[in-house]
Amino acid sequence: MPSTITQPDDAVDVPHGLKGVIVTETSLGDVRGREGFYHYRQYSAVELASSRTFEDVWHLMFDGVLPDAARRAAFTERTAALRRLPPDVAEALPAIARAGRASGPLEGLRTALSLLGARAGFRPLYDLDAEQRRTDALSACAAVPTLLCALHRLGRGLEPVAPRDDLPHAANYLYMLTGEEPDPARARAVERYLVSTVDHGFNASTFTARVIASTGADLAACLVGAIGALSGPLHGGAPSRALDTLDAIGTPERIDPWIRERVLAGERIMGFGHPVYRTEDPRSRMLREIARGFGGPLVDLAAQVEERVEKILAELKPGRELHTNVEFYAGVVMEQCGLPREMFTPTFAAARVVGWSANILEQAADSKIIRPSARYVGPPPAQPVPTP
Amino acid sequence: MPSTITQPDDAVDVPHGLKGVIVTETSLGDVRGREGFYHYRQYSAVELASSRTFEDVWHLMFDGVLPDAARRAAFTERTAALRRLPPDVAEALPAIARAGRASGPLEGLRTALSLLGARAGFRPLYDLDAEQRRTDALSACAAVPTLLCALHRLGRGLEPVAPRDDLPHAANYLYMLTGEEPDPARARAVERYLVSTVDHGFNASTFTARVIASTGADLAACLVGAIGALSGPLHGGAPSRALDTLDAIGTPERIDPWIRERVLAGERIMGFGHPVYRTEDPRSRMLREIARGFGGPLVDLAAQVEERVEKILAELKPGRELHTNVEFYAGVVMEQCGLPREMFTPTFAAARVVGWSANILEQAADSKIIRPSARYVGPPPAQPVPTP
Repeated sequence: MPSTITQPDDAVDVPHGLKGVIVTETSLGDVRGREGFYHYRQYSAVELASSRTFEDVWHLMFDGVLPDAARRAAFTERTAALRRLPPDVAEALPAIARAGRASGPLEGLRTALSLLGARAGFRPLYDLDAEQRRTDALSACAAVPTLLCALHRLGRGLEPVAPRDDLPHAANYLYMLTGEEPDPARARAVERYLVSTVDHGFNASTFTARVIASTGADLAACLVGAIGALSGPLHGGAPSRALDTLDAIGTPERIDPWIRERVLAGERIMGFGHPVYRTEDPRSRMLREIARGFGGPLVDLAAQVEERVEKILAELKPGRELHTNVEFYAGVVMEQCGLPREMFTPTFAAARVVGWSANILEQAADSKIIRPSARYVGPPPAQPVPTP
Repeated sequence: MPSTITQPDDAVDVPHGLKGVIVTETSLGDVRGREGFYHYRQYSAVELASSRTFEDVWHLMFDGVLPDAARRAAFTERTAALRRLPPDVAEALPAIARAGRASGPLEGLRTALSLLGARAGFRPLYDLDAEQRRTDALSACAAVPTLLCALHRLGRGLEPVAPRDDLPHAANYLYMLTGEEPDPARARAVERYLVSTVDHGFNASTFTARVIASTGADLAACLVGAIGALSGPLHGGAPSRALDTLDAIGTPERIDPWIRERVLAGERIMGFGHPVYRTEDPRSRMLREIARGFGGPLVDLAAQVEERVEKILAELKPGRELHTNVEFYAGVVMEQCGLPREMFTPTFAAARVVGWSANILEQAADSKIIRPSARYVGPPPAQPVPTP
């Protein structure tokens, strides 16, 4: 038995949390933190959200190009047909919703998507050709909104609403949630939010999806892992938390004392600050504009909180510029569009599943497993096992 | 809009697939590829498999020490009580098994463990103290064998067999699988296999579990991701494939032509070779000894195939030493112990869940998210979005 600790010859030391470590090349997009800019393929994501449909951007992410009219029609028709759940998956949802009373629709989605993948017989990525992988990914992405809305409604004692294939992706999402055809302005606002949330650099859930994909596991295995990572408070967070802050403040005259107290106590103000952006978060700018378009006391309060937080931070913590992040106005817009708070992070997942899938499809073209190392720092393994 | 590609200042280039990159420190164990040695904490894993129970090693991984008699009794009693499933999870299993006919018990486990975590109300790791995290991990690890055996039996049209809390972990596993109290030699052989499979360095599923844990997600989210990674052919592989090779060869006189043909065609021989071990896989040595103890034509054929493959490779590919890996004799031992082939990889998962959980508990003590980067290599994002 060896008596000293040996280290592998090829050990490579890197920053904690793999910060800045380049795992892979990608042509899906990037985030430029200092410029306050992010893009999907060669297009500004915010511009795409302003001028394109969710289906267009989904096509762009999967196939590398924006569709022309004929391809858009074919893609829309194909994905709309995939919204319907296999009957046995639909039948299992009440039990999943019941068991998930202690958690929520995101944990329910984790279970339901795992079930859907097994039901559909998703096979290991490396056993499939590119077209078969794309088919599995289309099925999963199309089903996620249906699964989420059904789980949400079942959790409130309501019957699920079957998808309609004559509605665009975002409008159908709101329809399945409420049972009513949505107001076009609200459907479009949600669509812009969904487009802006499809992808955002190499975040922890995207990385998780790619690690699992690198083992050759099936598409559901990758997506279920990504949903798990998104559910972590350090990643997906909760757009509802920023809204909870607005609720806690309540009225404009309470802003200053409330914020001062927290900043002086060293607490984080939810909805402010981002690990990558050194400027305003471009998603925040877009969502603020959408929220202002709807108007109302909530967005007025939000705008005042935003202004006061920036001023108070400049005064109390000079040199530390903090701007609103995507959570802050996303919560306001979702509230304005009638989305219940428990559906904020799930709605994020309903968009991001397209980004995860595009990353999985890209990873599947690389056949190298992602398998780093750890350094053993415990006592040297020289001791005989004591007899019980 | 920016017109040139900028790279982050802190980009760190590393080997492809993060090979050799040190993600974290660990005191759980290590693999020494050149020495043919691996250990859990400060003890040889193979020695532990020879002299300790599964529960002892589970305790060692979770708590850092082998239990004394009183702790062993308390730990065994506590984990045995956790084998029973909550009724609503048990009731959902037939639907999960039915939907999973196209896949198998591992995909079923992915779904069922997700459901169990939601049902048990597992909370984000960072919202829990160490004792609460340990409680969730004990519940999950104790339930995995019950879930797997129930899913396997339901898939064959049989009623699940309820766990018995008077049997040790491994014996109870075989009992739930077959409905019969197992022969002690076979229960002990399976127990040694399970102990030897609890952990093995920083493999892809363990890494996946730690990435998800680093976001603060709940324990089920981490384990479900790890199961997904294990299901990938480049990772968990299939101990049944090596056995399929023995079946395909059939009789000793067919060994040489069968092996020569494949080696000359450049095909991989299943059950041979390991990415880390440069010597014999220590798990293989232990499992060979167990298999020989049972005897029979299968192990005789396996020993002859092992000998001939090594000879033929030395002749046809000199300098390229290839030994049997854990898959080769694991399949033989599981077959001798009456485990059906579809349960080989799930049985691996039933042991490894303890290693994953110990890694998750260790990761939860670090509050830094694991979030690397990618390099964008697509066309520069300078183009306006074309109007549809």
